[in-house]
Amino acid sequence: MTDPVVIVGGDAAGLSAASKLSREDPDREVIVFERGRWVSYAHCGEPYFIKGEVEELTDLLSLSPAEIDDRGIDLRREHEVVGVDTDARTVAVDGPGGSFEQPYGDLVVATGARARSEPIRGSDLDAAFTIHGLDSAAAVRALLTPPAEFAVDDLGDNGYVDREAVARYGAMEPPETAAIVGGGYVGVEMAEALDAWDVDVHLFQRSERPLPMFGEAVGEPVVEHLRERGVDLHLGAEVDRLVGDDGRVSGLRCTGGATLDADLAIVGVGVAPNVEIVRDTPVELGDSGAIAVDEYGETSVDGVYAAGDCAEDRHVVTGDPSWVPLGLTANRAGRAIGKTIAGTQTDTGGIAGTAVVKAFDLECGRAGLVDAAEAEDAGFDPVSRTITAGSRSGYYPGAAETTVTLVADRDSGRLIGGSIVGTDRAAVRIDTIATALEGGMTVGEVERLDLAYAPPFSPVWDPVLVAAKVLNGALAE
Amino acid sequence: MTDPVVIVGGDAAGLSAASKLSREDPDREVIVFERGRWVSYAHCGEPYFIKGEVEELTDLLSLSPAEIDDRGIDLRREHEVVGVDTDARTVAVDGPGGSFEQPYGDLVVATGARARSEPIRGSDLDAAFTIHGLDSAAAVRALLTPPAEFAVDDLGDNGYVDREAVARYGAMEPPETAAIVGGGYVGVEMAEALDAWDVDVHLFQRSERPLPMFGEAVGEPVVEHLRERGVDLHLGAEVDRLVGDDGRVSGLRCTGGATLDADLAIVGVGVAPNVEIVRDTPVELGDSGAIAVDEYGETSVDGVYAAGDCAEDRHVVTGDPSWVPLGLTANRAGRAIGKTIAGTQTDTGGIAGTAVVKAFDLECGRAGLVDAAEAEDAGFDPVSRTITAGSRSGYYPGAAETTVTLVADRDSGRLIGGSIVGTDRAAVRIDTIATALEGGMTVGEVERLDLAYAPPFSPVWDPVLVAAKVLNGALAE
Repeated sequence: MTDPVVIVGGDAAGLSAASKLSREDPDREVIVFERGRWVSYAHCGEPYFIKGEVEELTDLLSLSPAEIDDRGIDLRREHEVVGVDTDARTVAVDGPGGSFEQPYGDLVVATGARARSEPIRGSDLDAAFTIHGLDSAAAVRALLTPPAEFAVDDLGDNGYVDREAVARYGAMEPPETAAIVGGGYVGVEMAEALDAWDVDVHLFQRSERPLPMFGEAVGEPVVEHLRERGVDLHLGAEVDRLVGDDGRVSGLRCTGGATLDADLAIVGVGVAPNVEIVRDTPVELGDSGAIAVDEYGETSVDGVYAAGDCAEDRHVVTGDPSWVPLGLTANRAGRAIGKTIAGTQTDTGGIAGTAVVKAFDLECGRAGLVDAAEAEDAGFDPVSRTITAGSRSGYYPGAAETTVTLVADRDSGRLIGGSIVGTDRAAVRIDTIATALEGGMTVGEVERLDLAYAPPFSPVWDPVLVAAKVLNGALAE
Repeated sequence: MTDPVVIVGGDAAGLSAASKLSREDPDREVIVFERGRWVSYAHCGEPYFIKGEVEELTDLLSLSPAEIDDRGIDLRREHEVVGVDTDARTVAVDGPGGSFEQPYGDLVVATGARARSEPIRGSDLDAAFTIHGLDSAAAVRALLTPPAEFAVDDLGDNGYVDREAVARYGAMEPPETAAIVGGGYVGVEMAEALDAWDVDVHLFQRSERPLPMFGEAVGEPVVEHLRERGVDLHLGAEVDRLVGDDGRVSGLRCTGGATLDADLAIVGVGVAPNVEIVRDTPVELGDSGAIAVDEYGETSVDGVYAAGDCAEDRHVVTGDPSWVPLGLTANRAGRAIGKTIAGTQTDTGGIAGTAVVKAFDLECGRAGLVDAAEAEDAGFDPVSRTITAGSRSGYYPGAAETTVTLVADRDSGRLIGGSIVGTDRAAVRIDTIATALEGGMTVGEVERLDLAYAPPFSPVWDPVLVAAKVLNGALAE
């Protein structure tokens, strides 16, 4: 009898693999080990749970416990895989009942990523949080809620939350001033979430703009918009450490010596892939530090797969391995690996580096190579243009400025990246750019795309077409 | 000296050609003959002017008279070209100062299309309108406005409107019941516009669904939504004639004998290309009845170009000539022809048949080949699937059902068409499908697209990806 498929990690990639495999090959035994209690939850929804737009923690679950059972998945919560022996084909597991060895036929490493808190010292103080996981999201909302209005049961946690921690935060007085360290996705989304609780929000960003991966043409309007919405932006400000008083955050200190008093700190300085369990195995890591995989998600070791935030993927523009830990990639790769293990070799799909984020009322999107230095490193000679056009016909109510940047390679004329920012349906338009990138289109081909036009939805020339026209003109110079 | 470039028609295609040509080759003489007084206006905005969301007629002009002057375009309004002699390279013109022959070096036929009113007899009655041109739009709004509130000057017409006609309609009592004949773009958009004036709206559609070119998956929700919004839909109802009383519409009669009393009628039964001026010339028409052109917009006669609603274009899915008279195609082809005449041969671009329309709160989109019979005629073996998915993460406020249909060719797996309908950012998502069609992607490639995901804008699997997954599964069966 074949040993079971062992999946390490019960979130997007792991459970997608388990679900697809159990559907395609119901007779194959599948065991999922998850070291925490939460499985299959939407990381990306945490800021909206904290904001209060999403009421219950369980609303963020993609699969309920019942659905997992129905799919015949043997899910073991609070079981941590602490080692892998790829010769013996076993994993070492620490569970509530003790430690044991579990043989596997195929292994799927879907251990995800963790929020980094280094190099910010003091991140372990009370009321200092990274937002990565439902326990921290619940704790922040507990702290924001006035004690008289707080009840653990209102969190809708299905019994999974760390009730002791949230009860402790629920009993504290809500913060008046929040310091957000880092202006990436988490920082920008948390600024909106905390502002909704009438907290005085300060955001510290080391570089001169938030959302650096979106480029200057998005970053500048975001700076303006965050300031309009009352966020106190500290740009070019490197936070050295959080400072505390009696074990709780009381403020922070920048490397230049500037300080801020704050009674809540959110640290969002990036994530790191969880690759420890394969560190002493022949499973190779890529240059990014995440696990290297082929187009089927298989690692350098036969029968060992990796998917999701712990694994690389290949970039459709550069053709090179790339580490962009995002939700769709994890779901898609998990699903493809499930199918491959079931017997139908399935490509996990490349990534275009597509990402969107909401910054209060601004919709921001990016895809491909936006940064000139990154494009040059990949061997391109980047030419870029930025335009601003209306989101609808100028005469139609609700038309709003939409700024599009497109980047092309000078020699080939090929589109290699783009970004977008605006308040009216801007984010979804990045999909046009992502699709053109995956199609390997030139800017001339993008200019001739037959995109939708109707006054309520788009001007005759969609903003993406306007940008392509202008960039194509520049390429002809 | 070279004879001037003569452009027949001063709307999207004609003025785009003139503008581009005058910019690329400022020394070349360009004359635009326009038989009416209005030039460069947005047909697609007329329902919103009638509704009252757009205040003034001049808001619908893409180029003001001053802008046209600035571009050095010699525009002759109220000059009708009544004949073309391609041997002598002259056009015969009837103008306010009499008739004359105008020699041309290159000729651009941009005569547009006209609203058909046949076979609906009685369309010449008072208070019976086709919506094609600002004069008819102004007349309908004049009729809808109570006489005590009506003033010709409020129309913001810059002196161009038929003031006598609008004054006459402005003096009439507003209608109580409107009969819309035809459930295409005009019919559906006019239902919304008339409803805003508290008119009792009846819409008559010959087939079983409005918007037949969008397919059943869009048509059915549109039926439901129009009815929810109080539109009285008469489906499978063929209107035989409008009936009148003392020269004004008083109702209509269907071929089956059913009748309706109505004091306003809108006839929107399609458009026909204006090709009369080339009828007795060697300029060839295509099977559609519109003017046949090559990839540069040139007709079968050297130096004679055609663009916009009077001309065909080539369909990117079938590779065959196709007649889809829409705004972007006209602008793009005019611009390309201007550039070609100026010396840089420029492809007009193909069409994907992309179209979007707003039906009250429903956003509808389509691209490529949606209809099975049409796909079969083009030599494909169509397989299609329809799915409904959320527009945002399920837990995020504002998520709404979005229905996507994708159509593929069974043998090649190539995507050949698609449609979409929903209330939340549905229309713009058709651009993903249009771009994939132009890229010649298979459904498998669409399934692996790295589309944007963030809870406020899209679920992890964008509705287009969900449809691709399901259709790809069906193709594998």
